[in-house]
Amino acid sequence: MKLTGYEMAEAKRAASRDLRFAVEEFNAEYCAVLDAGEVEKWPEFFTEDAIYRITARENADAGLLVGLVYAEGRKMLHDRAVSIARTQMFAPRYNLHVTGNVRIMRQEASGEFAAQSNFILLQTLVEGPTTLHLAGRYYDRFVPTEHGLLLKERQAVYDTTMIATDLVYPV
Amino acid sequence: MKLTGYEMAEAKRAASRDLRFAVEEFNAEYCAVLDAGEVEKWPEFFTEDAIYRITARENADAGLLVGLVYAEGRKMLHDRAVSIARTQMFAPRYNLHVTGNVRIMRQEASGEFAAQSNFILLQTLVEGPTTLHLAGRYYDRFVPTEHGLLLKERQAVYDTTMIATDLVYPV
Amino acid sequence: MKLTGYEMAEAKRAASRDLRFAVEEFNAEYCAVLDAGEVEKWPEFFTEDAIYRITARENADAGLLVGLVYAEGRKMLHDRAVSIARTQMFAPRYNLHVTGNVRIMRQEASGEFAAQSNFILLQTLVEGPTTLHLAGRYYDRFVPTEHGLLLKERQAVYDTTMIATDLVYPV
Repeated sequence: MKLTGYEMAEAKRAASRDLRFAVEEFNAEYCAVLDAGEVEKWPEFFTEDAIYRITARENADAGLLVGLVYAEGRKMLHDRAVSIARTQMFAPRYNLHVTGNVRIMRQEASGEFAAQSNFILLQTLVEGPTTLHLAGRYYDRFVPTEHGLLLKERQAVYDTTMIATDLVYPV
Repeated sequence: MKLTGYEMAEAKRAASRDLRFAVEEFNAEYCAVLDAGEVEKWPEFFTEDAIYRITARENADAGLLVGLVYAEGRKMLHDRAVSIARTQMFAPRYNLHVTGNVRIMRQEASGEFAAQSNFILLQTLVEGPTTLHLAGRYYDRFVPTEHGLLLKERQAVYDTTMIATDLVYPV
Repeated sequence: MKLTGYEMAEAKRAASRDLRFAVEEFNAEYCAVLDAGEVEKWPEFFTEDAIYRITARENADAGLLVGLVYAEGRKMLHDRAVSIARTQMFAPRYNLHVTGNVRIMRQEASGEFAAQSNFILLQTLVEGPTTLHLAGRYYDRFVPTEHGLLLKERQAVYDTTMIATDLVYPV
């Protein structure tokens, strides 16, 4: 009995680890695209019906799903991306994401799974200092496809309570 | 000879890599518990006789084992956790850990091993900015158990020389 | 056909993942040496003919390969290391690197490969606060050897536009 249980746990852990590696690689690509300013490619990381939301932690903790940014579906993500691309021309800045502490939370029989990661977003205005713009955690639902993972849902919950009012860039 | 040596090195590296993955997953869970404010669960990451210490790097470099925080044994960790939980009610804040750069340093025949990781602890006071509260390195001794790794010793050595006097929250 | 393509992609991904793990471990050792102030060991991470450069992102984006720091060959890296070691005696500080978001970009038949990683360099002056000194991305060319990876080229491209004029310490 004990051995059987141990084997199952091992199998589960090994599976989670593989998912973790896949999420780490997904996040590296996702962040590289955003950091390169290629925001028009950003919707490609999501499924057609995906939900994307940026929410303050105090709201998330209170169960208030009111987001600073909310988009439903790739088309809305794309519209947002286009408007962001235009805005950024007027206030150029560099973004740099660092992600880590990935946790695989739960996997469905369908292969879909929930994961969390911590993120730090550093921002540098031209001729300005590098500042800690936003820090928090991604709450994700991933769908495996033959071309790799896609996000069915990404909720970026940020701890930062004082943020610049011009936050429109995806996290 | 050369081939044999190479194989041994490969085997050693593969073993270290597996331990590294386990430490990364341990740190992700450890930090998630602290960041969620579930400090009462924090002692569960340690062995019964564990040592926990937070020390300034200048003291650690000088061999002075005088810690800002010191606890020996799970009971003392638990007492500290309870008092922290009470303190935090008066000064609510959000913690966010990001860990990385894990190194496996040495493994005993018993399975016990020493590791290092870098950590950044960001703190956000309610209605305040997110600040770099503490940054440094964990010096750890891990014990493998059938339920996963446990800390026999965690020394959090922080670089930060100016810290808020209210530092009591575990790192 | 489809299955064959899938297998190849899998094989490629598995190979990339293994390289990623090796780069993560390389970066952990590289940063640990720098953070410990053992700058005289720093050239050992490079090939004999290696190129090392620290460049501002605005220059890199413009294709201007004018570096804040430039060294070609281990000897020049060594000379730089010696002069840095002397400088640091006058302005003691602690460095802490956190690296992440490793991407394997392309691998040659020879085994050489290109990779990227994000880095944050925190610096703490004695009796001063910990500050975000430099943040950016490594653009690397690695060569596998029987003793592990060596850098044939490391370009540290930093986002930070305002930096202390005393930046001489390797990133």
